[in-house]
Amino acid sequence: MTDDLRAILGPKGFTDDPVDMAPWLTDWRGRRTGRARALVSPASTQEAAAVARWAVANRVPIVPQGGNTSMVAGATPSADGDALILSTRRMARIRSISAEDDLLVAEAGVTLQTVHDAAEAAGRRFPLSLAAKGSATVGGLVSTNAGGTQVLRFGPMRALLLGIEAVLPDGSLFEGLSGLRKDNRGYDLRQLFAGAEGTLGIVTAAALRLVPAVAQRVVAWVGLPDAGSALTLLRRLEAATGDAVESFELVPANALALVLAHIPGTRAPLAGEHAWHVLVEATAVSAEPPLGSRIEAALADAAADGVVADAIVAASGAQADALWKLRESISEAERADGVAAKHDVSVPVAAMPGFIASARAATEARFPGTRVIAFGHLGDGNVHFNVRAPAASDGAAWLVGQGDEVSAFVHDLVGAAGGSISAEHGIGQLKLAEFARTAGSARLAAVRAIKAALDPLGIMNPGKLVPPPQA
Amino acid sequence: MTDDLRAILGPKGFTDDPVDMAPWLTDWRGRRTGRARALVSPASTQEAAAVARWAVANRVPIVPQGGNTSMVAGATPSADGDALILSTRRMARIRSISAEDDLLVAEAGVTLQTVHDAAEAAGRRFPLSLAAKGSATVGGLVSTNAGGTQVLRFGPMRALLLGIEAVLPDGSLFEGLSGLRKDNRGYDLRQLFAGAEGTLGIVTAAALRLVPAVAQRVVAWVGLPDAGSALTLLRRLEAATGDAVESFELVPANALALVLAHIPGTRAPLAGEHAWHVLVEATAVSAEPPLGSRIEAALADAAADGVVADAIVAASGAQADALWKLRESISEAERADGVAAKHDVSVPVAAMPGFIASARAATEARFPGTRVIAFGHLGDGNVHFNVRAPAASDGAAWLVGQGDEVSAFVHDLVGAAGGSISAEHGIGQLKLAEFARTAGSARLAAVRAIKAALDPLGIMNPGKLVPPPQA
Repeated sequence: MTDDLRAILGPKGFTDDPVDMAPWLTDWRGRRTGRARALVSPASTQEAAAVARWAVANRVPIVPQGGNTSMVAGATPSADGDALILSTRRMARIRSISAEDDLLVAEAGVTLQTVHDAAEAAGRRFPLSLAAKGSATVGGLVSTNAGGTQVLRFGPMRALLLGIEAVLPDGSLFEGLSGLRKDNRGYDLRQLFAGAEGTLGIVTAAALRLVPAVAQRVVAWVGLPDAGSALTLLRRLEAATGDAVESFELVPANALALVLAHIPGTRAPLAGEHAWHVLVEATAVSAEPPLGSRIEAALADAAADGVVADAIVAASGAQADALWKLRESISEAERADGVAAKHDVSVPVAAMPGFIASARAATEARFPGTRVIAFGHLGDGNVHFNVRAPAASDGAAWLVGQGDEVSAFVHDLVGAAGGSISAEHGIGQLKLAEFARTAGSARLAAVRAIKAALDPLGIMNPGKLVPPPQA
Repeated sequence: MTDDLRAILGPKGFTDDPVDMAPWLTDWRGRRTGRARALVSPASTQEAAAVARWAVANRVPIVPQGGNTSMVAGATPSADGDALILSTRRMARIRSISAEDDLLVAEAGVTLQTVHDAAEAAGRRFPLSLAAKGSATVGGLVSTNAGGTQVLRFGPMRALLLGIEAVLPDGSLFEGLSGLRKDNRGYDLRQLFAGAEGTLGIVTAAALRLVPAVAQRVVAWVGLPDAGSALTLLRRLEAATGDAVESFELVPANALALVLAHIPGTRAPLAGEHAWHVLVEATAVSAEPPLGSRIEAALADAAADGVVADAIVAASGAQADALWKLRESISEAERADGVAAKHDVSVPVAAMPGFIASARAATEARFPGTRVIAFGHLGDGNVHFNVRAPAASDGAAWLVGQGDEVSAFVHDLVGAAGGSISAEHGIGQLKLAEFARTAGSARLAAVRAIKAALDPLGIMNPGKLVPPPQA
């Protein structure tokens, strides 16, 4: 049945060898393993469209896959083995870059690191970054509306998306790569595809907004008496520097302790003990006036007022990188330490310090022996709220036995606070049941209606994002 | 038949008196006049939902209307008189405002001016502005994805939209007002409603992003040898000031001449004659360092390099307002001078100077006697490209006889340049045929499919945005 596909794509573009396919059948977190009919790797938009037309004709599902770094198993096929995995890895060309237009057009398989490098070579910058940047691809970044550490200033992927090209579920091509800054022609399909997780079609290329290159970068690590002071500090820094603050990452004492315990070469950035820390990064596109002195002055004022307990401003790029390593190693340190039920939640920004305190207390009381580590993008009202298995337990068994109950408990707290159970990771497979449980009927009906309208055969990434109708 | 509605809404919320309805049956530009069964003005979301349920039960169309300032007759009912006009004017409450969260929640009928005032009273700012701010409402701004003069820095309405509440076409309520900075739960309905022109439901409230108040504002008027120099200047100013430039408006000599001829109290801002002008506004949220001196230095450098012919930086708020009045009076001056076929087009930013030159020449050659005035948001790649009727002609008769042909010609030039036939005004009624002609089959199919999925009865603002299937 797949002989036609093999003919369309050639030997580099088609395999059904189990050994070749194996790495792409399990998600990055190792939570789901599926099966696939074949792994297809079109080299062009035209080949991707040909795959889609074949899939329509044969009623075969397609699972688009970029860097396979989904946090919610959003690019992993189901266990039935019906689907094709459509890898974008061979569609990895930067089609154009214009410093004058602040515009870069990249095919879906281009990695984020490659986008960064190309922008830098043109004297510009693509201001979205995340830990998986060496693997994560443009198609995946669009399809998950990726976040990362610079959302505070530049917004998530959808805010940087000036156009898309996509193969629609009927095999037709949507050509929307114009790169226009303003375009009010009908429903914004570009925005609909951002975060659609491949369920409405295959994003084959994107037009991305660039910004001026950075001339000054200031990184500071701040110790705080409490999480509420963090927000006060953020507003003070914003007032002192305008839009300069682009990362504002919250790190609790217990997360820092895990990093220091498990990650070689790390050391405490401040002398004393502090309940909370934030990592601040601010940038400026002109060399003058000096940004560092304004931030140091704002930190000194905040210290005098008791908002800040202690702070250090990195004196070199190496020191800045060392501070960032503390933040970026939290997930790795957590994994080294054991198992946790992980959540990616948001509430309104001003409510986050209070939410962290109350939700942590409620969760640790309800599930004795657990410890909550809540860290991340405080400036966006988004933290990773991870509930660690009791020290005495078999972590894996605890997760299997208790994980769903813990997650439902945490998500109900989030719901009561007006928040989201998926701030940046999406729904994929792993959050599908909780999305269906918590989303509300109007939202679910709209999501299902849109899916059914654009993909009536249900060919595009089935089993992700769109909850099946209730039995 | 409408007695039930009268009972639901009370005397303040219902009228079918032709005199009362008359002002709302014709669009702001006077291009379309419709008829309506009644004018309903619900005082609350619940009443709006009740109207929608009644409309579903009785298969009666609803035309949502805010300030009735659509440029494309997007809020004007059709001539058949079947529809209700649903005015949002009584839903005019600001529900909440939080300086700490940079968040304002306003009902659909709140005017933009009121949003500005409320933000200012809280020490913050809502950074979207347009000429109709005293009439334009939040619901309309969302539903048209409004642009204006600050898109360059802050983006259009969708970039400032942190949540919506909407009555869906089945009368159910979508409650998405959380005001979250990050939320990746399924398709982004908020973004889908932004620019949907009321065709998918009635936006009843919106959560809007605020930004820090302005501490410094610098306004300059610059004379230029050519339009290409304008872009060079923009990139220089951006490099000199970071994100400070928020308006960069292009004014050709012929537009300035019309303003000086028709608008009392205006005078030429510069001594000499210049083919092109730009109005620049830059702001900073902190009082230091001084922004004016950096802009003056950049302008002086540009003048030394021949990029700028002459420039003046406003020395007072009154002088700044006088410069803005020159820009904002262009449309009024054009109306006073006669009739034009108007277009709201975008192309990639870097291509705009060349597009203006070539499209103007082509249009004036193809339609002898016409004169093109192209002005507006150069920094966004968006100009208003207006083709003035030949001086010797009866303008109104020319527009009726030639307008469609002129518009098709201009739109084809835009299409060839990879641009949009509606950068910020939307489709409404006036651009529906041209949208259908130029959009491409994949885009049209997707727009129709989404509309049919979410509004299967076709009740919400029929005859706008969604081209009917071809006969």
